[in-house]
This record gives sequence, C-alpha cells and structure tokens, in this order.
Amino acid sequence: MSTEQLIYLPLGGAGEIGMNCYVYGYGPAGKERYIIVDLGVTFPDMDGSPGVDLIFADIAWIAERRDRLDAIFITHAHEDHIGAVGLLWSKLQVPVYCRAFTAIHAKRKMEEQGQNPDEVKIVSAWPETVQAGPFTVGFLPISHSIPESSALVIDSPEGRVVHTGDFKLDKTPLVGEPYDPELWADVAKDGVRALVCDSTNVFSGHAGRSEASLGDNITKLISEQPGMVVATTFASNVARVRTLAVAGEKAGRSVCLLGRAMRRMIDASVNAGVLSDFPSTIPVEDAREVPRENLMLIVTGSQGERRAASAQLARGKYLGMSMQEGDTFLMSSKIIPGNERGVYRIINAYSEMGVDVVDDNDGMYHVSGHANRPDLLEMQNLVKPQIVVPMHGEHRHLREHCKLTAQQGRVSVLAPNGTCVSLSGNEPKVVEYVETGRTYLDGSVQIGALDGVVRDRIRMALNGHAIVTLIMDENDDPLGDPWVEIMGLPETGRSGAPLVDVLEAELSQVLGRMADKVLVDDAKLDEALRRATRNAANDEIGRKPEVTVVVSRLS
Amino acid sequence: MSTEQLIYLPLGGAGEIGMNCYVYGYGPAGKERYIIVDLGVTFPDMDGSPGVDLIFADIAWIAERRDRLDAIFITHAHEDHIGAVGLLWSKLQVPVYCRAFTAIHAKRKMEEQGQNPDEVKIVSAWPETVQAGPFTVGFLPISHSIPESSALVIDSPEGRVVHTGDFKLDKTPLVGEPYDPELWADVAKDGVRALVCDSTNVFSGHAGRSEASLGDNITKLISEQPGMVVATTFASNVARVRTLAVAGEKAGRSVCLLGRAMRRMIDASVNAGVLSDFPSTIPVEDAREVPRENLMLIVTGSQGERRAASAQLARGKYLGMSMQEGDTFLMSSKIIPGNERGVYRIINAYSEMGVDVVDDNDGMYHVSGHANRPDLLEMQNLVKPQIVVPMHGEHRHLREHCKLTAQQGRVSVLAPNGTCVSLSGNEPKVVEYVETGRTYLDGSVQIGALDGVVRDRIRMALNGHAIVTLIMDENDDPLGDPWVEIMGLPETGRSGAPLVDVLEAELSQVLGRMADKVLVDDAKLDEALRRATRNAANDEIGRKPEVTVVVSRLS
Repeated sequence: MSTEQLIYLPLGGAGEIGMNCYVYGYGPAGKERYIIVDLGVTFPDMDGSPGVDLIFADIAWIAERRDRLDAIFITHAHEDHIGAVGLLWSKLQVPVYCRAFTAIHAKRKMEEQGQNPDEVKIVSAWPETVQAGPFTVGFLPISHSIPESSALVIDSPEGRVVHTGDFKLDKTPLVGEPYDPELWADVAKDGVRALVCDSTNVFSGHAGRSEASLGDNITKLISEQPGMVVATTFASNVARVRTLAVAGEKAGRSVCLLGRAMRRMIDASVNAGVLSDFPSTIPVEDAREVPRENLMLIVTGSQGERRAASAQLARGKYLGMSMQEGDTFLMSSKIIPGNERGVYRIINAYSEMGVDVVDDNDGMYHVSGHANRPDLLEMQNLVKPQIVVPMHGEHRHLREHCKLTAQQGRVSVLAPNGTCVSLSGNEPKVVEYVETGRTYLDGSVQIGALDGVVRDRIRMALNGHAIVTLIMDENDDPLGDPWVEIMGLPETGRSGAPLVDVLEAELSQVLGRMADKVLVDDAKLDEALRRATRNAANDEIGRKPEVTVVVSRLS
Repeated sequence: MSTEQLIYLPLGGAGEIGMNCYVYGYGPAGKERYIIVDLGVTFPDMDGSPGVDLIFADIAWIAERRDRLDAIFITHAHEDHIGAVGLLWSKLQVPVYCRAFTAIHAKRKMEEQGQNPDEVKIVSAWPETVQAGPFTVGFLPISHSIPESSALVIDSPEGRVVHTGDFKLDKTPLVGEPYDPELWADVAKDGVRALVCDSTNVFSGHAGRSEASLGDNITKLISEQPGMVVATTFASNVARVRTLAVAGEKAGRSVCLLGRAMRRMIDASVNAGVLSDFPSTIPVEDAREVPRENLMLIVTGSQGERRAASAQLARGKYLGMSMQEGDTFLMSSKIIPGNERGVYRIINAYSEMGVDVVDDNDGMYHVSGHANRPDLLEMQNLVKPQIVVPMHGEHRHLREHCKLTAQQGRVSVLAPNGTCVSLSGNEPKVVEYVETGRTYLDGSVQIGALDGVVRDRIRMALNGHAIVTLIMDENDDPLGDPWVEIMGLPETGRSGAPLVDVLEAELSQVLGRMADKVLVDDAKLDEALRRATRNAANDEIGRKPEVTVVVSRLS
C-alpha cells in the first residue's frame, strides 16, 4: 500500500459561510505538496468584531509550509472566495490561478496591497488544466451568479477530486455558463474519489429556481409603479444586476447604477466581454433630469450597509437623488442572518418618506445562487463520488449535508475548519486536527482574533472606561489627589454628585489609608486603585468599568 | 362645537416593536386629563446600545404633566408592556390598574425598585370598569399567549376607544380567555370612535392559527426522538410552555423546566389559578436520574441570550445536565430580527455535539401570538370603528396597516411615537408633535439615549482608546516625556515597534517644537496632543483612536 496520501484541510469556510480557504495536499505524510483553493474574507459585526475592517482565515499553518505550496486557485470573484488574495499573498508567494474575469479582480486586489499583479495567471475553462506540483487542476464551468464561476477538477495520483465552489443547477443563469450535466457527467465518467461540495442551502427543501424565472415578475412590478423604482441586490450578483437592468429597460425606464461597487463590477464584466448584452445605463447626473416614473436606480446596500447607496438615500440626498412618496424600493436579495437590524432601519426610514418597500416574501423577486437540497442530490447522482465532503457552510449545514448524504447510502465526512482528512483508502480518515482561527484586518494591521485587542474594545463598549492618574513624589507619597477621567460612563449616579468627584474622593480616602509597601509597589498600587475605582463605581452607578491606572513617579 | 378634545399620543411602541407606552387625554386643549396605557421595555443590542441593561420610552412629557395624570393601565404581563412600571413609577405616582395575574408581576416589579406594591390595583374583566379622571376603563379579555391578556375599553365624553393591546383571534388559545366575537360585538354595538390596534403581523398574509393546532405535531415529534428533547420558547409565552409540557407528558416523558424566568412565570400562573391544568414537572435534581429517552427539558433562551439555559447547555454542563449526540433541540419560537447571530451560534454548538435541531421552518411547531393581516380585517369588521389607529409596530408596520385600512374604505391615522392625534371631530387630526425618545437603564442609572454615554462606548469599540498623560512643571514645561497607554489597539503596527513607543516618541517631538502659548493653555495643549496621537496612530496602524489626554500641572 502506498505511503502517499491525498489530504483535504479546510482553513476557512467549513464552519461559517464566508472566508473560504481550503488546502489540498498529496505526498508522503508530513511531506505533502500543497495547493490552496480560494482566499476569501468575511465581514465583521458589532457583536463580535467591532471596529474590524475584514476577517479572513488564519493561514499560519500553510504559510509555515509554503516551501511545499505550489499554487493558489480562485474559483470565482466573490469576496468570500477572493477577498484576501492581496492581503495574504506575501505570506504565500506562489502563483494565483483563475479565469479571466476573476483575474481582473484578483489583479486589482494584488495591486491595492502593493503586490505584483502578474502573479495572477489566467487559465481557460476545462479542458485546459494547470500543473501544480502533484496536482493537475482545471476550471469546470458551473452556474452561480457571477461570470466564470467554476468548480475545480483536481487530479492527483490518488484520483480525481471535484471541488464545486459555489454553484446552483441553472440551465438559464443569464450570466455565466449554464449548468451542463453532460459536461459534468463526462468529467465524472472515469470515477471521482471525492466531491467537495457547497452546503449553503442544504436546508432548502425545494429545487432551486433559475435566474430566468425572475425577469417577467420584476418587469411587471416595475411597470406598475407610479414613481421612481430603486432596486437593490449584491453588486457582486452580476446576474441579478443584469436581470434588474433588463427588467427596467423592458418597463420603459432609464436605468442608473448607483454605488461604487455596483458600477465597478458591471464595468469589469462588460470590459471582460462576459456581459455583452447589459442594457445601456445613464449616469446619475442625467438621472436627475429623468421624470421619476421613467427612472430606475439599481443601488448597493442590500444588507443595510451604512455607507452604501441605499442607506445614503434612506438618510436623505445622495448624489443629488432622493426618495419621496410614491417611489418604490425593491429588495431583490435575501437578508443574510445578522443583518436584519440594518436592513429594517433602512426600510423604516423609507416608510417614513412614504416609499413603498417590496421585499422577497413570496420568492417572486429573488432566487438563491446556491444549490438547494434536491440539487445537492442531483449533483451527487451525476458525479457519483466515492466520498462527499460538505464545505461552504456553518457546522449545522455541514452536518445536515452529511446526514442527507448518508440517507443516499453514500460515504461522507464531517470536516470543519482544521480537520485534516485523508481521502486515500476506502474510507475518509481524519489524520490530524490543525489549529485554525481568524485573522482580523484592523485598520492597516493584521491581528489574531484571540489577541485580546478586540476583546478589550468589546469590554469598553459593555463597561465603559475610567482612567485614573496619580503622581507620586520623590518620597513615594501621593502628590496631590488622584485624577479620574471617564468615557462611556454616566456623568452622575446615585448620589447626584458628578461621578468623577465621587470616584476621586473615594480614591483619596483609599490612598490615605494605604500601606507604604503598597505605595512603593507599582503593581500593587495599580491593582488597589483599580479595585477601589470599580467598587466605588458599582456603588454609584451599578457598573464596574474597565479601569486604566497611570501612576507617574517623580523619583 | 366642544373645545374639549380626546387625544392619543404614543410615547413608545409606535415606531418599534417594544417599549409600549401610550397616553390618552381628554379635556380642553392644553388642560387635558391623562391616562397611560402600558409601561414596557425593549432590549438593548451591541449595535446600538452596548452595555445597556434595559430600554424604555422617555416619559418626560407626561411626567412634567403628572398633576393631570390619573392612572396607569397595563394590558398584560409581557415585558414590552409591563417591564418599566417599577422603574418609572416614581416619576408618575398614580395608581396602576391591571388584572390579577398581571398584578403579580407588576407588584414584583414595584417591589424590586423599592416602590409600594399596593399602588397596583386589581381590576376584574369587563364589564367591571375603573373611573380615572374623565375616562372609564375596562379590561376586555382577548386571546394572546399569556393569561388575562386584555384589550382596554376606554370611554370618554367623546366616545369609546378600543385599545387592543397584543392579540390574536384564537378561539382555543389553551391559556387565557378565548377570542369571543360576540362579547366584542356587544362592546362595539353602540359605536366605537377609534380602534387602536396591534400591527405586528400586518405583513403575514394568511389567517393566524390557533395554539391548539400545535400539540399533536409536537407530541409526535417528541415521541419519535431517540434521546433527550430540549425545547425552548419565550418563558413569557405561557401558552406555548403549556403546549410543550402537555406534549411532553403525552409522549410519556418527564418534564423539567430550566431557567429562572421559565419557572417563575409558570409558578405565578399556577399560583394565580389561571393555569390549573399544567402537567406536573420534576426538579432538575431528579431529571439527572431520568433516562434520556424519557426526559424533556423546557428551557429559556429562545433568542440566543448568552446567560439563558439553552446557551449554557450549548457551552457544556448546566445544573448537571448536558446535551449529547442523539438529543434533539426544538425551537418552538420565531427568531426576533436582530437575534439571528446568537441563535445560530447556539444551534451550531449543538450541531458540534451531534444534537439534532428542529426549527420552525414549516410552521409545525410555532404559531404567532399576534393577529395576522386577515385577522386585523376581521377585527375592524367586528368593531366597525370610525378611525383605525395602528400601534405596536415599526414604522413600516404602521404604514402598511394604514394602507390596508384605507383599502377597506376606513379612516386611519399614521401616528408614530410623539404624534399627538385628536380623535375628536370627523377626521383624526395631528395636533402636536411631542419630543420623544428612549431612556436607558445603564447599570443602576437612567440615562437619555442621546446623552452621549453610549455613543462614547460605541466609539471606543470601533476605534480603540489611547490615553496620554503628561506632567507639566512649575514653569509650564513638560516634566519628562508624555506617557501613552492603549486599550483595544494593536500592540504593533507598520514599523514593528511597540505602538506606545511610536506614539510617545512622536508626542515628545511634537512637545519639543510646541509654542509656549500652547504649553500654558490646557485646551490647546490637550487638542494638540490629541491630534498628534491620532495622526501618528493613523500612520502606524491605519486607525485614529479615541484619545483621552490628562495633563497634570505641578504649578
């Protein structure tokens, strides 16, 4: 039996929907050669990562082994698959392979981070392949919601792996290549060892619907509206932006794209020649002159993002445009869990303006870009893999996908982030658990999620912050009274006196009875002042703040 | 024409789902006598109110007029209607009227805040009424999800107002009085000037379903599970807790209630005699000895609350109980928008344990406690009010409710918080806009939402906090170098040197070239150091922190 093994190791994306990053390896145990599939980001939130700019997988494990890393492959240009390529490339320094449209975005991200965009190499669709160490990799077209979305066909001496990337089974996707079961059957005909498969919609029981099913509904809706129609979706959902724009044109309206990401994505698609039939649009300067009933805006901000066009319009004027009674806001997207508050904030602001909001309660104006439960089974039956490896999901999605697979009598493996699975042999085998985690881009700095920086920010947000300063003279006696500043704490509490006065009075008393051995010991003095501040604050305002003590010794 | 007017003024609840607080007034303009209906709370979130304990309506307007306030009426014992009664009573100091079960909770809340529980007066159901200034008020039973939920029949010389409170049209609610259309028709038969009506479910197109429709589904589900079943719902949804407990008993399981709020609510219901048929339960000490397949826990934490029983079980042991592979977690509740992250965090933790999670995707295990769109129309047709006033909703709900009403040819008025509406005359008329807002309970202190305290906490969470201390000698020259402490900022940035060293070096340089007139001026010196710190941090870590400057002058 061979000592060589084929391994699969998710560093991100198998435990969340976002920050996709998967490692494949082949070779003798501990001496495998590697490739990476996708380097994506996920987005921060106030609950767990306030102030953070972007989140991506901690790639320390593979970075430490980069002498055995041969290439990076990017399946498609969505941020959760491509977003970290520029930020992480310097730690990996191997070629980045992707298709032409994806390469536009990858090169831009490399340039933005001061990396050489020529490290991004363009590969055509299957049957073209790239050799990367022991792997031969091809880009197999599949329908999703952005041009040139591809699965990867990853061949190794241990057999063929099909890594689906994000996909749906759509024979009329309008943007990107249609789902071609014959092509996929042909790829699978000599046997597939493992299907590593998108799990996003495993809980959706009905078969997925085609992008082409939306156009007539949306055209009809737009035609019936008396005022301006403002539609929103993800800018990166190129298919939907096209569907909306075509519907607007059919309804006899001038179409204007608002929001930088929206215009950039459509421009890139048109320039790459993958979106040749996009309706002509008008610039916002011209839109201002168009009667409202003849105008449609397609705007960024489907998730309630505060700086996006939809939020700006909800607050008032944006680039000279504003919403008013009789206008309609169409949400052609689902709300990603966790974004509800921001989205409803915008909808309520529109409601106050008298704008009618149309959402997707009935599925008439939105279809998902991911395969639903029956589609996952169709894919399994087409590819007939020995092993199914669910990816691209939270733990609950991966687990459900495994259960679904087992019901079909197929073998699957539940492999959340950090689970190194050998795909050699008859059964998948977990060979190692690797430490994984999240890296934050925080301003311009990359920090570990567990470094404590963000934990401290959350503590200040929950508890407020008191700063105690004290000067100690040459004899290690307090020079004057301690001084207290507060931030994020009530000005007054129980006694009605200013909180800082109450705290300063208490600290003066504490200092007055403090033993000399405490006064001369920085750590003890610091701790005593901290504890006294927290207790006094608790008495006065019912809250123990974070405390920073600064003692300056003149000695 | 009379100079007397009947007014309606929502201070909370008409602009959010939560913190209900409605004022009715009658009398000459500016000299009306008032009553308050409900004094509820809403719950904070990390996005907008980190660290806050509770939120309720700013009642300054009515508190300033409390010499003309005659009474407070509480429709039912849900927190968003009763939660602030203890916290706000001292500013109002008038009797609190409610039904017996509601009074148990109101009295406890009064006691907890050091108020006299005897200020809470028990009123029986309609046709009993209370006289309060110019108003005669009765509690009209209606189905909801907690015992003794009631609408209010508010009579004034200008006619009858029916204030629905929270309601659904359920003839078999299992807990609380059934919906009795004959009783309601009788109350309405002599004409109703205004129906002030719950708007929560105006976007739900199908008729509401009865609580009684769930029992068989849940019993069947429980019977089929091989391990322990843990079910969660709102503790205050007494009807659902009963439905779950009965289903567990029917499925042959011992039932144990976990979570303080859950046990307290059921105990109160049983003690009040409004829940006589609740199955017998076992204490957690006994539950540990019951075989898993014979056990059902009903637990708090349906919204992912971190300290509730469901979250504790997701983290490991709780009171000696723990979940394991083969167990089932049943969510018999909907997720309130904004709570998705917390709920999915728990579900994913259970998934990691191998616990099957059953949610309410198909409506089999949960029905709403609020009237749906067709039910709202049924209510209008029953009561036949001259005016419909939507309440208990975000702006989008209120607006939709008005549109729905207009489609029936009825008059409605869109009155978000602060809109003082005269219900006298043929048409409702907005007579005044009153300043309203939110009050935060923050620790033990009540602060205004716009006081800046929470804003500062959010800023520290987003930007981190740098503290600069500097001692100036008797000659107004810096004594030594400035000292920097950081909290919530990366330790190192671009240069690789410690951030505090970089900032201190920069500040020393800035001080070295500082003009004397700045050095002697506290405000200017503070501002110069703040600006220098922010700019230096931005260069080093790409982020401008909040800065607190403490200058100590020895002079």
